[in-house]
Amino acid sequence: MGVSVRVAPGEPAPVRAARNRVGAEIEFSRVVAFSDGVFAIAITLLVLALEVPAGLDDLGQALRNRGDEFFAYGLSFAVIGSLWIGHHRFFGDLRAFDGRLMALNLVYLAFIALVPFSSSLLGSYNDNAAAVIVYSLNMILISVALTVQIVYAYRQGLMTEEAARLRGGAFFARSFIIPGVFAVSIPIALVNPDNVPWLWLALPILVRLGDAWGRRRS
Amino acid sequence: MGVSVRVAPGEPAPVRAARNRVGAEIEFSRVVAFSDGVFAIAITLLVLALEVPAGLDDLGQALRNRGDEFFAYGLSFAVIGSLWIGHHRFFGDLRAFDGRLMALNLVYLAFIALVPFSSSLLGSYNDNAAAVIVYSLNMILISVALTVQIVYAYRQGLMTEEAARLRGGAFFARSFIIPGVFAVSIPIALVNPDNVPWLWLALPILVRLGDAWGRRRS
Amino acid sequence: MGVSVRVAPGEPAPVRAARNRVGAEIEFSRVVAFSDGVFAIAITLLVLALEVPAGLDDLGQALRNRGDEFFAYGLSFAVIGSLWIGHHRFFGDLRAFDGRLMALNLVYLAFIALVPFSSSLLGSYNDNAAAVIVYSLNMILISVALTVQIVYAYRQGLMTEEAARLRGGAFFARSFIIPGVFAVSIPIALVNPDNVPWLWLALPILVRLGDAWGRRRS
Amino acid sequence: MGVSVRVAPGEPAPVRAARNRVGAEIEFSRVVAFSDGVFAIAITLLVLALEVPAGLDDLGQALRNRGDEFFAYGLSFAVIGSLWIGHHRFFGDLRAFDGRLMALNLVYLAFIALVPFSSSLLGSYNDNAAAVIVYSLNMILISVALTVQIVYAYRQGLMTEEAARLRGGAFFARSFIIPGVFAVSIPIALVNPDNVPWLWLALPILVRLGDAWGRRRS
Repeated sequence: MGVSVRVAPGEPAPVRAARNRVGAEIEFSRVVAFSDGVFAIAITLLVLALEVPAGLDDLGQALRNRGDEFFAYGLSFAVIGSLWIGHHRFFGDLRAFDGRLMALNLVYLAFIALVPFSSSLLGSYNDNAAAVIVYSLNMILISVALTVQIVYAYRQGLMTEEAARLRGGAFFARSFIIPGVFAVSIPIALVNPDNVPWLWLALPILVRLGDAWGRRRS
Repeated sequence: MGVSVRVAPGEPAPVRAARNRVGAEIEFSRVVAFSDGVFAIAITLLVLALEVPAGLDDLGQALRNRGDEFFAYGLSFAVIGSLWIGHHRFFGDLRAFDGRLMALNLVYLAFIALVPFSSSLLGSYNDNAAAVIVYSLNMILISVALTVQIVYAYRQGLMTEEAARLRGGAFFARSFIIPGVFAVSIPIALVNPDNVPWLWLALPILVRLGDAWGRRRS
Repeated sequence: MGVSVRVAPGEPAPVRAARNRVGAEIEFSRVVAFSDGVFAIAITLLVLALEVPAGLDDLGQALRNRGDEFFAYGLSFAVIGSLWIGHHRFFGDLRAFDGRLMALNLVYLAFIALVPFSSSLLGSYNDNAAAVIVYSLNMILISVALTVQIVYAYRQGLMTEEAARLRGGAFFARSFIIPGVFAVSIPIALVNPDNVPWLWLALPILVRLGDAWGRRRS
Repeated sequence: MGVSVRVAPGEPAPVRAARNRVGAEIEFSRVVAFSDGVFAIAITLLVLALEVPAGLDDLGQALRNRGDEFFAYGLSFAVIGSLWIGHHRFFGDLRAFDGRLMALNLVYLAFIALVPFSSSLLGSYNDNAAAVIVYSLNMILISVALTVQIVYAYRQGLMTEEAARLRGGAFFARSFIIPGVFAVSIPIALVNPDNVPWLWLALPILVRLGDAWGRRRS
């Protein structure tokens, strides 16, 4: 990747108002803690989509009918969890941050905090095109918001030089594969929404292949 | 601003029972973490206002009708997010704190934690004067509670000297512009509530102008 | 208070399996962070008791009728906030902790996490004896659970010597005044529940008097 | 236990991509903070299962009928609390972690975050076999997911040598006793679900006996 970062390792990036990570460690850790808090709360709020059945007649049957809700819970837990690991890595690669990155991070978190809603929708109506499309759009918005953050951090020289060199290809691959799969889901959902969520289970394999490809390229 | 702080840089403020920030770093960080926790939880609870439509008939149509709820979600996420950044900066400028500042901070947080309610009200009834007024009042109370904290910290010499010198004008401008716009919203809402929330989108620009004005003055 | 702590300052307490605070700072801070998390979540969940009115007919009137809910919100926010400050101080006075103190702390947190329920009950039915009694019982249980923790920490020599000397009287006063007022509320509520919550507003004054009395005694 | 860890104390484990705990302390603490966040949120969300009775007729009677909900609240608070202490200990014994352990930890947290649902189900229908079975299955899944994490960490040499030597027996005992009791609960529940939750109150005693047995063995 043609990232034009031209700074000596360890030296603060030549950015107006950017705060060096080591110097502003306490404030950086507040941003990280806030982001982690939003991730942890959003992932734990997923459980609120699992409604306790109202009737006592046949509780066992009622629970078995909720298979779709449990599927959406598991899927979204895995999604938020792996997004958190990705965010974790991205922030681990920063050596400085500025106000604009904080604002971009908030936009990203706004889409993360929306997942309990999309997931609840998917759990209740996973054979309905609208639910599948809303979930796909949410994932696309998350991916794009992360890619914007990463590109911004690269361009402004906010990443450590090593990260900029090593991770470029992998980030690049991911930022096309994930939204790509969800973008493809939308027309499929309009024809046959029933099986789209199962298709998403292939994502971890595709991401892994993309990572391997990215590593070979860099 | 005529702030009468007369202490040498780095020297603890001459306040009875005030704790120096460096000396009581662990306890200071607990207050910060608690505040951040309330911000992170309140911002993530906003999603609970987005109800999953009950019917299956036309889910797509039902979701499009929820435009107001999504608008309120986005608006309130931006509001809490930028309030958090402001709080973040204010606490970054403190060099000591005392029990009264902790109490004032709790009052401030009580109004922050109320936003998911006001936001949910606004999302459900954003063409109703009462909903717009409740939201505006909530924002005014938050602004006033922050201004009280800042003024108290200035007067008691709890801020670093540099912050007291540099930030005075900007804080001053903000603490009039934000509640001012919301105060003006109330009479407008009584006549024509429909368009008031759109008016609020001008706030970031006004705040930026106020900041620029404040910086020129100081 | 006849606290029989006989250890030199800075020396680890002679307790089997007690962990010295400085030595196990990371683990101590995890317990603190977990407790703060429960406080922050419980205080922010209070807002969920404020229901958005269902009808559009007269939203302004509907909101004014919710005065009791807002009162319960403000009261419980103040209660949890000041309990958090108290917990904060207590943990600031510890120099070591052991497994039993962690278990006692969990029992205490279980009663703290119950406040959103009691508060919601009080907001909906604050003219009903049962609601006032449940709220009072919750407060009594919290007070007792905190007192048990403090007494245990004193007896086991887990507090810093200075704290054991200075704070004894104040803690003692508080641990009688707060549950005392709530215990007195129960028979009053059985006769006339309507005004009991207003009576609780006198608590901060009584606690302050108790603190002053405690300080003079020690 | 035949753990084949052959590393000198303090030396990083010879694992590809494993991060040494001291070297990556910030990132390790993020994983810990995220896990603690999920625990704290899940434990505080338990209160949402306690519904405020709708009627005003006889609030006292309505509350007394909710005995089962309060029992489920107390039981689940104790369960999540003690699981948190166990997790706390396990992470305290790690000296390094890798990506796979993070993934296993997320699976474990997904079952922890499910407890508010199972607990709510148990509180509403604790005389129904299906509710008891769901709760038991949740506990078995949590136990198994923790055991898998511990076994993985042992095998990969991610634990401190001291922990691997001392704790082996105790972890081993626990990882059979807890899921064992819940596995036995399932056939009992099918015959007579009413009394199963009371049986679980014997768990702390059984775990303690198991710990003692484990300590004697190692």
